[in-house]
Amino acid sequence: MAGKKVLIVYAHQEPQSFNGSLKNVAVEELTRQGCTVTVSDLYAMNFEPRATRKDITGAVSNPTLFSYATEVYEACKRGSLARDILDEQKKVQEADLVIFQFPLYWFSVPAILKGWMDRVLCQGFAFDLPGFYDSGFLKDKLALLSVTTGGTAEMFSKTGVSGDFRYFLWPLQHGILHFCGFKVLSAQISFAPEIASEEERKGMVTSWAQRLKTIWKEEPINCTPPWYFGQ
Amino acid sequence: MAGKKVLIVYAHQEPQSFNGSLKNVAVEELTRQGCTVTVSDLYAMNFEPRATRKDITGAVSNPTLFSYATEVYEACKRGSLARDILDEQKKVQEADLVIFQFPLYWFSVPAILKGWMDRVLCQGFAFDLPGFYDSGFLKDKLALLSVTTGGTAEMFSKTGVSGDFRYFLWPLQHGILHFCGFKVLSAQISFAPEIASEEERKGMVTSWAQRLKTIWKEEPINCTPPWYFGQ
Repeated sequence: MAGKKVLIVYAHQEPQSFNGSLKNVAVEELTRQGCTVTVSDLYAMNFEPRATRKDITGAVSNPTLFSYATEVYEACKRGSLARDILDEQKKVQEADLVIFQFPLYWFSVPAILKGWMDRVLCQGFAFDLPGFYDSGFLKDKLALLSVTTGGTAEMFSKTGVSGDFRYFLWPLQHGILHFCGFKVLSAQISFAPEIASEEERKGMVTSWAQRLKTIWKEEPINCTPPWYFGQ
Repeated sequence: MAGKKVLIVYAHQEPQSFNGSLKNVAVEELTRQGCTVTVSDLYAMNFEPRATRKDITGAVSNPTLFSYATEVYEACKRGSLARDILDEQKKVQEADLVIFQFPLYWFSVPAILKGWMDRVLCQGFAFDLPGFYDSGFLKDKLALLSVTTGGTAEMFSKTGVSGDFRYFLWPLQHGILHFCGFKVLSAQISFAPEIASEEERKGMVTSWAQRLKTIWKEEPINCTPPWYFGQ
């Protein structure tokens, strides 16, 4: 939708990859709609995933008993977070929709993207206590996970060896995104592109582009346990 | 138990932290039993969490379309993984029990520990296809997550805002550990030490040390959906 701002947080090493194609069609389609699209290409940025003392510029409150969460919270309030965190927070702040594009690594996001979440979505910026879940600070924004998997849809079904795909979405969508207040749109899951035919892969890319045409009309999911584990 | 080997993969920035205390009592108690204990102190090692081309020494098979999983699998078979991965794999290979000691970050492990999992537990070392879940390569080993949380036990209950704690254990215990074949011992969860009294914190440390006295007699959990999501 013209005028909307979208941030794509993208975590794949190879521009020519299937993940790269999904990212590219999203940029194309959303730009075509008149959206402003920003991409954080984490591997290209060599984004720092480790949560350390370096995330605070200047002195910390308690250097002899360093508490990352406490120090980052205080640094956030006084504007002394590391530059790369501030840059990402600015992109999130400006976005109406944040899309995370990544291959599933161990039922979750790759470490480089986990590091983005650990470091960027800090207390004071994305939430406070209180000020989380439905009152999280990012509550006027949408978020969407676009995931590729190694396993097939059948493996990620209720009776499959890896369990329902909703089970692995819980920590990501509820524990992270919903906690920060994001309204969560249904995940786009492209199952097992590596064992798909070229035609099937093209179909997955096309269906993602197709979905994005009407993405602004979608209703968020009801991000509570019944959606994930419902009988 | 005398003669047993234990690897503790430890992810906290501050030696004086509560996580540090839990790690220390584990080292003490297990050493007292006659076990050989090795600690991978990830922040002290500045462990690399990013999964990149650098994880393969020498040439890759397809440099123009880099596939991390494929290249690492092949590098594993021909012995050309990066030194830090090989070092960690050797520690895992020698261990009878692997304990992961970490604070819960976003319903999961901190990125530095996710990177350890992403990079160390690669195909060819920890599993193959086929050769996963009950036939994963690490099937003669035990694993145990020792987690500290920000949220209280009540928040992490079935009716709490963050849902049952078993929900966030699923991707870690089933998706990672069980996938590699590990027999999973019950997680040790120390809830909300930061808002606990000094006495309560000491109690949590003591109960962990106490549990370790009989750890070798414990039966693994039945790591399947009913354990996590059972009615």
